[in-house]
Amino acid sequence: MSEKDGLVSRSEDFNEWYNSLVLKTDLADYGPVRGTMIVKPYGWTLWENIQRALDNRFKATGVENAAFPMFIPTSFLEKEAQHVEGFAPELAVVTHGGGQELSEPLAVRPTSETMIGHAYANWIQSYRDLPLLLNLWNSVVRWELRTKLFLRTTEFYWQEGHTAHATAEEAAERTRMMLDVYDDMARTEAAIPAFTGEKSALERFAGAIHTYALEAMMGDGKALQSATSHNLGQNFARAFDIQYLDPNNERQYCWTTSWGLSTRFIGAIIMTHGDDQGLVLPPRLAPYQTVIVPIYRKDTERTDVMAAVEQIKQALAAAGVRVKVDDRPQLTPGYKFNDWELRGVPTRIEIGPRDVAKNSVALARRDIPGRDGKQFVPQAGLAQAVTDLLADIQAGMLAKATQFRDDNTQDVADYAGFKTAVSTGFARVWWAGDNVAELKVKEETKATIRCFPFDQPGGTGTCFYTGQPAQQVAIFGRSY
Amino acid sequence: MSEKDGLVSRSEDFNEWYNSLVLKTDLADYGPVRGTMIVKPYGWTLWENIQRALDNRFKATGVENAAFPMFIPTSFLEKEAQHVEGFAPELAVVTHGGGQELSEPLAVRPTSETMIGHAYANWIQSYRDLPLLLNLWNSVVRWELRTKLFLRTTEFYWQEGHTAHATAEEAAERTRMMLDVYDDMARTEAAIPAFTGEKSALERFAGAIHTYALEAMMGDGKALQSATSHNLGQNFARAFDIQYLDPNNERQYCWTTSWGLSTRFIGAIIMTHGDDQGLVLPPRLAPYQTVIVPIYRKDTERTDVMAAVEQIKQALAAAGVRVKVDDRPQLTPGYKFNDWELRGVPTRIEIGPRDVAKNSVALARRDIPGRDGKQFVPQAGLAQAVTDLLADIQAGMLAKATQFRDDNTQDVADYAGFKTAVSTGFARVWWAGDNVAELKVKEETKATIRCFPFDQPGGTGTCFYTGQPAQQVAIFGRSY
Repeated sequence: MSEKDGLVSRSEDFNEWYNSLVLKTDLADYGPVRGTMIVKPYGWTLWENIQRALDNRFKATGVENAAFPMFIPTSFLEKEAQHVEGFAPELAVVTHGGGQELSEPLAVRPTSETMIGHAYANWIQSYRDLPLLLNLWNSVVRWELRTKLFLRTTEFYWQEGHTAHATAEEAAERTRMMLDVYDDMARTEAAIPAFTGEKSALERFAGAIHTYALEAMMGDGKALQSATSHNLGQNFARAFDIQYLDPNNERQYCWTTSWGLSTRFIGAIIMTHGDDQGLVLPPRLAPYQTVIVPIYRKDTERTDVMAAVEQIKQALAAAGVRVKVDDRPQLTPGYKFNDWELRGVPTRIEIGPRDVAKNSVALARRDIPGRDGKQFVPQAGLAQAVTDLLADIQAGMLAKATQFRDDNTQDVADYAGFKTAVSTGFARVWWAGDNVAELKVKEETKATIRCFPFDQPGGTGTCFYTGQPAQQVAIFGRSY
Repeated sequence: MSEKDGLVSRSEDFNEWYNSLVLKTDLADYGPVRGTMIVKPYGWTLWENIQRALDNRFKATGVENAAFPMFIPTSFLEKEAQHVEGFAPELAVVTHGGGQELSEPLAVRPTSETMIGHAYANWIQSYRDLPLLLNLWNSVVRWELRTKLFLRTTEFYWQEGHTAHATAEEAAERTRMMLDVYDDMARTEAAIPAFTGEKSALERFAGAIHTYALEAMMGDGKALQSATSHNLGQNFARAFDIQYLDPNNERQYCWTTSWGLSTRFIGAIIMTHGDDQGLVLPPRLAPYQTVIVPIYRKDTERTDVMAAVEQIKQALAAAGVRVKVDDRPQLTPGYKFNDWELRGVPTRIEIGPRDVAKNSVALARRDIPGRDGKQFVPQAGLAQAVTDLLADIQAGMLAKATQFRDDNTQDVADYAGFKTAVSTGFARVWWAGDNVAELKVKEETKATIRCFPFDQPGGTGTCFYTGQPAQQVAIFGRSY
């Protein structure tokens, strides 16, 4: 690549590395309206693969998809007091339609709990209608001041699940179940080992009684909240009058939940695995799992090489490998190697006249750049070799990310240790502070409670900040 | 079904039949904002099946998916003169964001040609970047006064494809190719035999030089425009400065196209195939292809019946049949038969204790209601029998719809014959009129030119209306 196209190194300027990488790899571009994003085919295919991985898991738990309107009467948002307080400052508001001023302004949905509340109140009559388990794939709008592609944009793409239940227990179980679904998808598909746990009261979703989250550690040691699941108790059921007749013919309020994962997760993939050479995409989600680069000079060479390429491509596709042939005539093989490395394609197959003669290819792995990651393998059985290598890369990426996360998560007992820990990663500490204490820590260190992890040591300890006896440990970190 | 739940007969009141059917079958519901629609799981699954059928076909032609922001600066819309004239009266406008009045109001996209124009102008540099072939799955907003679920709603779901080409020929070819893709999907998947052809100048998309359409005949003889493909010439390329350097290093304007199919197509499916008993869904798109209704009175019967049901369900699912078991305990088999008939599930399997004893089931087909459509078949080989029956139903539905369309499309030579023809279906006539004549015919008969069909008789004729020599035939009909 020319110097002008070069990527700033990750260690040098993580933020600039991220921003330029997203643009250079054609994942996304800025939209013309401040804070908006165009997701380009490479990024959208990655999102489609994430969608499929999640959608299958949702459906396996009995969830069905549906679609709800994007326009929400502003009066709906005002029905749940905490909810409107949380979202009112971020709304985009439609005031005119069809050339007329509207009698009631409409919010473009920032999230659909209120619209769902309205519909569920109409639809649910009896306990036989429960549980009601719906998911929506759509985009939502939140007027953000500081935006960053994938991580925080005015409009973003996500799924939002909304369920209604007859009992508090069922709602609690569903909330945790969906966080487990996210965690399983993140680990299995994206090779992202996040901490899972409950958010503090300060960080809770506006209107929830419990919010659970996936908190992943990025390559710079900062935290990225990568998915959330909310137990809404009866807050929205009471605000929207979602009631059912129980088997004794008595009216009861429902218990509801909501849960979401957004295109922000693409940011998590980039920042968990990327390196100085660019993206490193997990094989199970990568738009292309392998790219074939033909190498030739003369036309006669070209014929032989392309015949072999075609055969290999067919064999790989038949084995279910997502394969791309880079036959752009105007570019050199060297340029293509760099280009696909930048784009994070997990494996690369190089084939030239000598490889054709030897019935072999060069097979390179993205997670180990350079010669160490390159081997020569026979064309016979190549599809199996690639499939095995992809599985090996996937496992290696999860192991590496887990190691990094653990190396940079420190159990500390005092404030000095805490400050050191959160300057490079996470601090795990006993915590007995209140909201005021939490805000004070944030003010002093920029670190916030990412979650109270489900994985607790047990017993009690001493709060590193207040010195009071503490019932649980919290994970603190600086966050995106 | 109780009388109160009964469906008005189709012949009695087609409009009321349609409206109540959509609601009763849980395809969709009204949203709280006038003209908006909630697509419920049964309707959304139907849409997902349409999406998959189209998406595979798009990708086979080299199209990739992407996502563009919903907010379009109103100044963008003004860049193409005809486009703004066509869409300005229907816009929803965001004037406030994050509590502030915006310096420039934003339109919620009614369609994305302008947004695409802006992006393509940035992205396309050289002939090597062409063709650029993108598709978006999203929703758009048009402020409609008279709305009807699926057919015309303020917000609707669709795909919009947008391509840019180096030559006029390529753009022309792509425009026709995508109409062929729609036609193939409609016939093969939805059993809808539409007329394909070019729209008249009056009915052209705002900003296009040619608009082609699928014009399907509904069960009441009216036309439904079911998909469109637009050759935009260089209109948007010039308005947005989409230029490329050709191989001689000279700047050229691109040629662009756009094409779309929306949730309106669900309305086409309902109104093409539905009958007095309710929906009749084409097997290839139906959310459930078969429903199993267990029949039993005693608990001992239940055990045996449900064991057989489970086995049959597994066998069908393994054969790729989308199968639903209706084990709702509080409902009678008779109620369930009616319910699934209403919902248009193509086949129904009934199994009771006597069927278990005989290792057989009753297999009913939705397209032939009552006893004539019911047969007793052995459980051994049932999956194959169902698969064959589904293929038979699919073919039968296409044949029936084609017959109906042809029976109700009349070649007529004079105005009296024309008026008779369009009172029950389509009129195919030689046409040499201008826009004024076309509007006059519409005023007098409510019929409009649905298309100039690609399938032309050849030669020339005499215009039924003006008496002038005519070069081509047009198909007229009353439309939704």
